[in-house]
Amino acid sequence: MTKQLCLGGFMRPICLHTAWWRHPSAPTLANFNWPVIRSLAQKLEHACFDAVFTADHLAVMPMPPNALKRSGTITSYDPLVMLSAIAACTDRIGLIATGTTSYEDPYLLARRFASLDHLSGGRAGWNIVTTVNPEAALNFGLETALRHAERYERAEEFFDVVTGLWDGWSDHALVMDKETGVFSDLDKIRPLNHKGKFFSVKGPLNIARPVQGWPVIALAGASEEARDMAARSADLVFGNARSIETGRAFYRDVKSRAVAAGRNPDHVKILPANQVYVGRTRAEALAKKRYMDDLVHVDSNIPNLSIRLGVDCSKFDPDKPLPELPHTEQGQGNQREWAALARREGLTVRELAKRAAESGTGEMVGTASEIADQMEEWLMTEACDGFIVVFYTVPDGYDDFVTMVVPELQRRGLFRTRYEGATLRENIGLPRPKSPLD
Amino acid sequence: MTKQLCLGGFMRPICLHTAWWRHPSAPTLANFNWPVIRSLAQKLEHACFDAVFTADHLAVMPMPPNALKRSGTITSYDPLVMLSAIAACTDRIGLIATGTTSYEDPYLLARRFASLDHLSGGRAGWNIVTTVNPEAALNFGLETALRHAERYERAEEFFDVVTGLWDGWSDHALVMDKETGVFSDLDKIRPLNHKGKFFSVKGPLNIARPVQGWPVIALAGASEEARDMAARSADLVFGNARSIETGRAFYRDVKSRAVAAGRNPDHVKILPANQVYVGRTRAEALAKKRYMDDLVHVDSNIPNLSIRLGVDCSKFDPDKPLPELPHTEQGQGNQREWAALARREGLTVRELAKRAAESGTGEMVGTASEIADQMEEWLMTEACDGFIVVFYTVPDGYDDFVTMVVPELQRRGLFRTRYEGATLRENIGLPRPKSPLD
Repeated sequence: MTKQLCLGGFMRPICLHTAWWRHPSAPTLANFNWPVIRSLAQKLEHACFDAVFTADHLAVMPMPPNALKRSGTITSYDPLVMLSAIAACTDRIGLIATGTTSYEDPYLLARRFASLDHLSGGRAGWNIVTTVNPEAALNFGLETALRHAERYERAEEFFDVVTGLWDGWSDHALVMDKETGVFSDLDKIRPLNHKGKFFSVKGPLNIARPVQGWPVIALAGASEEARDMAARSADLVFGNARSIETGRAFYRDVKSRAVAAGRNPDHVKILPANQVYVGRTRAEALAKKRYMDDLVHVDSNIPNLSIRLGVDCSKFDPDKPLPELPHTEQGQGNQREWAALARREGLTVRELAKRAAESGTGEMVGTASEIADQMEEWLMTEACDGFIVVFYTVPDGYDDFVTMVVPELQRRGLFRTRYEGATLRENIGLPRPKSPLD
Repeated sequence: MTKQLCLGGFMRPICLHTAWWRHPSAPTLANFNWPVIRSLAQKLEHACFDAVFTADHLAVMPMPPNALKRSGTITSYDPLVMLSAIAACTDRIGLIATGTTSYEDPYLLARRFASLDHLSGGRAGWNIVTTVNPEAALNFGLETALRHAERYERAEEFFDVVTGLWDGWSDHALVMDKETGVFSDLDKIRPLNHKGKFFSVKGPLNIARPVQGWPVIALAGASEEARDMAARSADLVFGNARSIETGRAFYRDVKSRAVAAGRNPDHVKILPANQVYVGRTRAEALAKKRYMDDLVHVDSNIPNLSIRLGVDCSKFDPDKPLPELPHTEQGQGNQREWAALARREGLTVRELAKRAAESGTGEMVGTASEIADQMEEWLMTEACDGFIVVFYTVPDGYDDFVTMVVPELQRRGLFRTRYEGATLRENIGLPRPKSPLD
């Protein structure tokens, strides 16, 4: 069988383009409207997407008022509440929720993801983030976010606690013998007795081992710490490459780190986010893109760039090239990608900022055949194992992709026409972790 | 219109009777099986129940192994994950989830309940608990649970933060004007800037004001602190009265505290939990009860009593009356109810322990007409405003109640035949809290 793409749909927020909600066809509250969200998830399942993916923020976005008031991000669902509801209305599509290791509690998080995994019949995924937004810290009793290195140290311990709790149950712990009255075999359920730098957790978890052993583990981030953690621990690595060259470099780097960590590199899937504009002609696709970009209010541009870079860009001369950026405690992969883009195309800060409003991810524009060509090239030349597809508006961005691009990928044998497995791990081709008790 | 009963269905765990899962008709994994849970929730909605209610524990129950291995409580869903899924499969029934103020974070909790309220179209409720189980503390980095008084002090501040976050949004904050590109009116969204003893939370919340203003607030607990907090803050008060006399005393006490706190006592609904056995004849109902109680293994009895009382009862002489109980940091209402029962009926510890295995709540046994008589008497003589109905097994306990008792209550005009309102507050007859910004 030819190599196939793994496709996730970016569904929270419903779109990343700053102006998505201003499109004439968009329900303005789509990001926050359950019937719309349900119909989109079912659409992606009908198209055989591997999973829907939900990002998250734990605060209102740090933007100046003129930009914030224009942003649809200000109201949205908790990812797990939203995915639990989607679980009840779908049968096969995976459900990947972001959960922060900086502000959540590991016992509660382990239990919630196990709950979603059981309730969905083995379709849950956990996207581990460490939350860089300094506004979030202020909602959780801290004056500033933890420093980068400490965030990752905490994330590593958090991950060990969560997976340790899942591993505290054998697959065979539930006996449920009506005759003898024995419900569970307590020899197959073990406390964790974890005592570490950040957490002290006795266990065991009060929910059985997840259907998938562990829900699928996803990680983004391009720092050294994030790459190392991804190589050791992640099933899916969300990338932010904006060119096929940076995509290949990232792919090579993470896969070789995975090999160095003793893992099979095929079990670490690299999925860059990618916003797609597709039309019956290339001109139509470009017109869609231009139409959307022109809907972005000028006041949103510089603040959007500031968020992408983790640096206040209002201090820069908008008509000069992007200056050397200071080292920050925030995500470093985005800085690198955006600086490379500015250099590559010789953009001023103002020009770069206009790009930032568009979505902040990589982008493909063209006919279905051209999009499929690009995706095929990324896949076959080891720039990715698939994509997190970002839709430019609702429902048009979704409809365009599933009616035009998906059939073309299927025709080429690059994407499934029906789900192979029952669980997310089975569909993506990932092994099921074994409990040390089995 | 005659006074009507408010009815909630106890759905997590699916039943409280220790032996529910051993009944021949019970799917042994019902507590943990999504299609079964979905069908039961839809059954209760079809019967016009006000709400389903989900209790919660944050640890495996503190029982000796011989009892623990016989308990179906060992595995179950996170309440909010389960209710979010139920929200997607129902239209009108309320969804009340337990959330602890001792181990959750207020920003995350406020956001999750707001999410459930929006996603369900205004059907969410939050049952505030302070979590007495000392095993839970060990899962959250503490050596012991907080002391009773400090638990309530923290609960009060937690409640203020959560409701303050909900109140930080006007009902009219979302503008969504495609023409001007303005999504929200930032003058109608305010930070909280809370700095207290336990929490420091800036806000605002990144989700709009709940559909109901605030989700419905429920509280249980019979201590002075719990009664005072309920009188000030709760819409629903879950009671544990095991006789109509203690029910009336509790009702009078909480309602008069509510009046003293400046509230309309009709806006504080008292709902004792009540396990029901109904049969076509009284003998049939009694036989059902006897059958269930005989399924309880003797090893479960004393540990169950220990949990009800918050005291290790294995140290007592099983053939003597219940001794004077020590003061504990645990829930005190249950102690009082069980001690009164033992005195009233002259039970030994062993006899009382057998009762404890049955469910731990009040109980009604009889024909539909006899059950309706009792419920009517409780309602009309101010022992309650309704009940949290506890089902003895799955699906029989549910089916018995909705096919026999509900029609009899409806015939008497004591229960609705269709939902009056769209939201849980409307159906129960509760006012909608106004934002200070409106």
